[in-house]
Amino acid sequence: MTAPAPELEGDFVLDEDLLLECGRTLVRPTLHYAVYGRLNAARDNGVLVCHALSGSALVGAWWPELFGGNSETRGIVDLRRDCVICVNLLGSCYGSTGPGSVDPATGEVYGAKFPLISIRDNVRAQAQLLESLGIATLSLAIGGSIGGMQALELAILFPERVKEVVVIGVAPLSAMGLALNHLQRRAIESDPDWRDGAYAPDRQPKKGLALARQVAMLSYKSASLFTERFARRPNRNREDPWADDGRGSGLTGAGRFDVAGFLDYQGERFLDRFDANAYLAIVRTMDTWDPLRGYERAEDAYGRIRARLTFVGISSDWLFPPGDVRRLAESVRECGVQADYREMVTDHGHDAFLAEQTELVRLLHLPI
Amino acid sequence: MTAPAPELEGDFVLDEDLLLECGRTLVRPTLHYAVYGRLNAARDNGVLVCHALSGSALVGAWWPELFGGNSETRGIVDLRRDCVICVNLLGSCYGSTGPGSVDPATGEVYGAKFPLISIRDNVRAQAQLLESLGIATLSLAIGGSIGGMQALELAILFPERVKEVVVIGVAPLSAMGLALNHLQRRAIESDPDWRDGAYAPDRQPKKGLALARQVAMLSYKSASLFTERFARRPNRNREDPWADDGRGSGLTGAGRFDVAGFLDYQGERFLDRFDANAYLAIVRTMDTWDPLRGYERAEDAYGRIRARLTFVGISSDWLFPPGDVRRLAESVRECGVQADYREMVTDHGHDAFLAEQTELVRLLHLPI
Repeated sequence: MTAPAPELEGDFVLDEDLLLECGRTLVRPTLHYAVYGRLNAARDNGVLVCHALSGSALVGAWWPELFGGNSETRGIVDLRRDCVICVNLLGSCYGSTGPGSVDPATGEVYGAKFPLISIRDNVRAQAQLLESLGIATLSLAIGGSIGGMQALELAILFPERVKEVVVIGVAPLSAMGLALNHLQRRAIESDPDWRDGAYAPDRQPKKGLALARQVAMLSYKSASLFTERFARRPNRNREDPWADDGRGSGLTGAGRFDVAGFLDYQGERFLDRFDANAYLAIVRTMDTWDPLRGYERAEDAYGRIRARLTFVGISSDWLFPPGDVRRLAESVRECGVQADYREMVTDHGHDAFLAEQTELVRLLHLPI
Repeated sequence: MTAPAPELEGDFVLDEDLLLECGRTLVRPTLHYAVYGRLNAARDNGVLVCHALSGSALVGAWWPELFGGNSETRGIVDLRRDCVICVNLLGSCYGSTGPGSVDPATGEVYGAKFPLISIRDNVRAQAQLLESLGIATLSLAIGGSIGGMQALELAILFPERVKEVVVIGVAPLSAMGLALNHLQRRAIESDPDWRDGAYAPDRQPKKGLALARQVAMLSYKSASLFTERFARRPNRNREDPWADDGRGSGLTGAGRFDVAGFLDYQGERFLDRFDANAYLAIVRTMDTWDPLRGYERAEDAYGRIRARLTFVGISSDWLFPPGDVRRLAESVRECGVQADYREMVTDHGHDAFLAEQTELVRLLHLPI
């Protein structure tokens, strides 16, 4: 299918400064967003799609199956009926205010001084954008990974503003997830080209950012997918992992295994499309998310929810294990909220929600 | 218990050059080794213990429970009966010839020109040492991880030289394992202080080596162990992962989670005891091991074995998943070899064979 094109792609500048959960202030931040389809007269057909770490507002490009569009699969949204809004995360490098933006207070690029932005900060800013669009209540908010964090927080913070929420492949990061993110952070910081965050935009800490992406790719896939795709085969360009002709390095090898070639390629490719400080910013947004933080009891948070929730676990996900997603769904349900749990059965790992979109859409269409 | 002290720690220099599997030659390499207990008159009480990636010949220090020694646990070896030999891996930085050694052919330190050493190369060199000690047949060869690779290869290459073999937590690395090793290799290579392997010994690529160790630690432990030990708690020194006072970096955070503090500590600590090029060398030894490489059929390799084998899988191991170890045991058994499979049931992950030695020893004492 062809990816749907946005009706509108634009910037929304907040009327006022955003007081952040960490106590700092973001001076009149910009939200870059895209709109697909049109709002109806009642403005009650809005669907908010929330993106993950390296995503952008252009959801049509990265989640096309959500829109269906071919005869076999009915999408989750239908642009003849729905109006889809997707907002770039604060901290990102795809248009919203991030570490690469100029701090109006100093006239300088934020760099490493960009503040800690929480999921709630994002959701509060997005609520102001929705207000400006005249959307009182969304028919649906949906997201995977960090996108799911935002969708759930929206249901908690603004219970009247969303009727249905789909949370995919996410729960508060476990210790293993925090560990994986920490290695990615260290990979970037360890690159001298990072310069404590003060690198010029065209002088990215490339090796560190590529290595961070490689660690991330590992966590997005599964051991069984890797075995199926790569096994112990030599790299497909005919390198020989057993070779040592004495001319090169016996330590690092003239030849890679196929999985190593794949990881190197993924790391390299990422450099064309992401910024190191933005990466660090969003990893911290992800690390610090806990929907119960600041509440005394689970009921105080989850009990606020008015939307109908669907949680989707991914069977082979080891970054956000399905058991964690199921437990999150159960905690929410125990607070009297309608919360369904479904599981994508797949070998793919965490990013199955992007890699196997048709299966995800089918799963969401199953009756409760 | 106190760690047993070696009767002897010394160097064995091979009589001749070692022709390596890769086709290159190692000029009269040195094997550093330790001996615990004494050989009997028949010289048939020798036990070979093979060490893992960062181990040394001093097995008494890192695997003390193997020797038993307290009233509750009977060890696997008894120094009143057995004579234990442990040989440092070629490529290591603990006494055997490695990248930090001088290449007699050039008079210069090998550095990155150190050749690719296979598990078989190690086993062939060790066999020469055993010969020099007058040991025709070992009563036992035992090892975990890379140590298990050596023990199994010994049984294949020199069937008459070992009666019993214990192979713990190992199988040929899966694609996920190769991926994890590749990230460690890239972490070291990406550090400019690595200087293509030509760093001075006291100018290690510290950040890269520390990061490699952190990736490795992740693979040695399990998600459930991390959850149990660290959960989402802040670092125990009272850092606050949610803090951003505006003075430091909002991107990397003033405060770490506990698991991040643990990983940083492990990375740092490793710098005192390991060398980056040695690390790279042994990772490649590990990557390239395949007991069937060069044989046409499994029977051609495993059918050679005369020893009685015991394989031990570790239930929570995701570097060498227990299913892989079990399948390896089954392949060997299908070739008519006596091969038992046992499983350590533990949350610890791969290095349970070091961290939970008493449980391992108990498991090995269970009757078949």
